[in-house]
Amino acid sequence: MESCSHPYVPAELDLPGFVPGVLSQIQILGVYLSASVLVISLVWILSGRSLKISKTDRLLMCWWAFTGFTHIIIEGYFVFSPQFFKDKSACYLAEVWKEYSKGDSRYAARDSGVIAIEGITAVLEGPLSLLTVYAIAKKASYSYILQIAISLGQLYGTAVYFITSILDGDNFATNPYYYYSYYVFANSFWVWIPTLIVIRGWMKICAAFQVQVQKKSKKR
Amino acid sequence: MESCSHPYVPAELDLPGFVPGVLSQIQILGVYLSASVLVISLVWILSGRSLKISKTDRLLMCWWAFTGFTHIIIEGYFVFSPQFFKDKSACYLAEVWKEYSKGDSRYAARDSGVIAIEGITAVLEGPLSLLTVYAIAKKASYSYILQIAISLGQLYGTAVYFITSILDGDNFATNPYYYYSYYVFANSFWVWIPTLIVIRGWMKICAAFQVQVQKKSKKR
Repeated sequence: MESCSHPYVPAELDLPGFVPGVLSQIQILGVYLSASVLVISLVWILSGRSLKISKTDRLLMCWWAFTGFTHIIIEGYFVFSPQFFKDKSACYLAEVWKEYSKGDSRYAARDSGVIAIEGITAVLEGPLSLLTVYAIAKKASYSYILQIAISLGQLYGTAVYFITSILDGDNFATNPYYYYSYYVFANSFWVWIPTLIVIRGWMKICAAFQVQVQKKSKKR
Repeated sequence: MESCSHPYVPAELDLPGFVPGVLSQIQILGVYLSASVLVISLVWILSGRSLKISKTDRLLMCWWAFTGFTHIIIEGYFVFSPQFFKDKSACYLAEVWKEYSKGDSRYAARDSGVIAIEGITAVLEGPLSLLTVYAIAKKASYSYILQIAISLGQLYGTAVYFITSILDGDNFATNPYYYYSYYVFANSFWVWIPTLIVIRGWMKICAAFQVQVQKKSKKR
């Protein structure tokens, strides 16, 4: 099996058969951002055809479509491709993870904690995120609780992701640039957006119960 | 530093300074079960003084008190006692984890995934579980969503706990007896009880939103 030195930290990480990525950072990010803008624009335009959906709900539909496709396609590929770092075909999804591993080499190293979190995210949270787009559009009674459930899962996963890294020495990034841009900045979206969604949903659910209590007391 | 061979699997696990437990399994379980029966009985009796609390809610209050104290005291000790396996004082909580590690040696080995999950459980879910006892008693509007949030956290933690073990070879138990009694059976309570609580809370929240929608449509 051919072997090639890898750009990841720690340098002792053994990746037999590693093949360096061929796409540049700009190409990888360009495809991801373009596809994301396309999905978000489509959801925004289609949801705008209904006068009954508020702008906040349309924004949330965009988020759930974006995060759902990210979970299923990008993270789903990682979970089920243990040998992505050996890919020679310049497969886009393999390139994504070869690049992201510069921010967190636990991905290339197949750390069990990372795989467990990504597995739950890709297999459960991804499809449920897309269901949420439908639930918001249909004003389903389970819309807020579903949004809270997935958001709490994202927050729990991100917490375990960061805590395990700190406990294991917090030394998995190739350099501070990748540490702050990939590991810190990119992941931060899955901290502050789910937090806002949980707060909003929590308040809506409490309000619904207060309405129920008022209704019961009026009946008496 | 004195060293003693330990009863855990894998045998290669290095635990310098390990001191064998002195309490028997029956003594350890006896104290835990007695304390649990005491807490559950107290909550059951005190909650029975109010005619307004249903039997289901009283049972749930017992669960939340039991799981809350387990999270804070038993699991909290583990998180903040990295050297429990060196304890010479027959401290009850160190004995608990020396014994439980026979079912899952990752506890003695300070596996980062286990510490991350136990940290979130002890620091966040424990105090929130006790808050839930109060929320149910007061029929707070956030009672169901709080119960769902903690239960989902327990389910997520248990899922990561089992998945990482499987990914790492599922070979951390001293023998099948400890595997099935400690690792599988004891943890199963934190699978089926939170699942039932999530299903119940989910239905209650959906019902509350249907009441809200009915109320709005009547106003028109």
